[in-house]
Amino acid sequence: MRILTLARNRRSVRKFSSDLISNGDLFYILDAARHAPSGANRQPWIFIIVRDFKTKQLVREICEKIEKRFYSRAPKWFINWASSRGISWVKSFLTEAPILIFVFSNSNMLYYIESTWLMIGYLILAAEELGYSTLTYTPSDVRWANKLLNVPNKYKLQCIIPVGKAREKPSYPGRKDLREIVYFELYKNDINNI
Amino acid sequence: MRILTLARNRRSVRKFSSDLISNGDLFYILDAARHAPSGANRQPWIFIIVRDFKTKQLVREICEKIEKRFYSRAPKWFINWASSRGISWVKSFLTEAPILIFVFSNSNMLYYIESTWLMIGYLILAAEELGYSTLTYTPSDVRWANKLLNVPNKYKLQCIIPVGKAREKPSYPGRKDLREIVYFELYKNDINNI
Repeated sequence: MRILTLARNRRSVRKFSSDLISNGDLFYILDAARHAPSGANRQPWIFIIVRDFKTKQLVREICEKIEKRFYSRAPKWFINWASSRGISWVKSFLTEAPILIFVFSNSNMLYYIESTWLMIGYLILAAEELGYSTLTYTPSDVRWANKLLNVPNKYKLQCIIPVGKAREKPSYPGRKDLREIVYFELYKNDINNI
Repeated sequence: MRILTLARNRRSVRKFSSDLISNGDLFYILDAARHAPSGANRQPWIFIIVRDFKTKQLVREICEKIEKRFYSRAPKWFINWASSRGISWVKSFLTEAPILIFVFSNSNMLYYIESTWLMIGYLILAAEELGYSTLTYTPSDVRWANKLLNVPNKYKLQCIIPVGKAREKPSYPGRKDLREIVYFELYKNDINNI
């Protein structure tokens, strides 16, 4: 399937069925991801695959505590946006999805955030291609994850990606038109002039 | 073509032929990119397409000045890596590629760097799919770009992406094995235990 089709069809999903993901499919997705380019080819990323239900429960508890705090202070536009999408401090996808991919990045490396998130673009498209839904979820505090998963502190959690079969089809949240975001030669010069 | 194939085949390219890129292809690539997810769907990115040769020359001059300074202070491992890949302060791709896509991101928005780089993952895969090569080039100083292209300062240049037909096939720089970067349940726990 074409990239544009995958990109258009993909939705961030927060409700997952109990269907498992095969190891073959999981490795395909990670294999595509690891081929992403990175600053000076440093490949600053590591992945921890969490499937154990007890760990997922613990992760959910920790994240929901963090989110409750975040939501109590979040700006109004964010709360409004979240509630319009059915999003709250409740993070049921953390126990519902068959696996969670914890993506960490080595903060000693050049452009580690940029490189890792570009790679995440590859990862979620590869998952979509195989019919799996994903979400890139970054809790507002991430330091606990190193302790929980024994990860050295030089690695910083970038996001948790639940992967599984969708149990919902979220509505299309819309995107800006190309003309609103693409300019020709200079800022605000209409791209139709190209 | 499958994502894994695109990901494996893609190389960061620094030598471009003079072949043009059609507007249709350019819009396809940007259309795929704009469908990427982003923090709270804020879509913090804007794109400026630079095709004018005089602008490209000016960009190259500025960047080469910045790079000369950077290379004179860069760590030895970086210089070694760069020269092993034929990379130096000379940035001929900035005038050679038929177009340069300047990617800026709105620094007032939540997770603007993360969101923008995930989107760049979509963008470079879509270009690869159509047979165009790309590079994500971030000069070590970026503030000049706002002035040059009239872009408000809240937008920060994330990278310049030359897009065109490759005039070289760079060798495969290698990637870490999955077993070096993917762990099961806990850091350093072999993924073969999954």
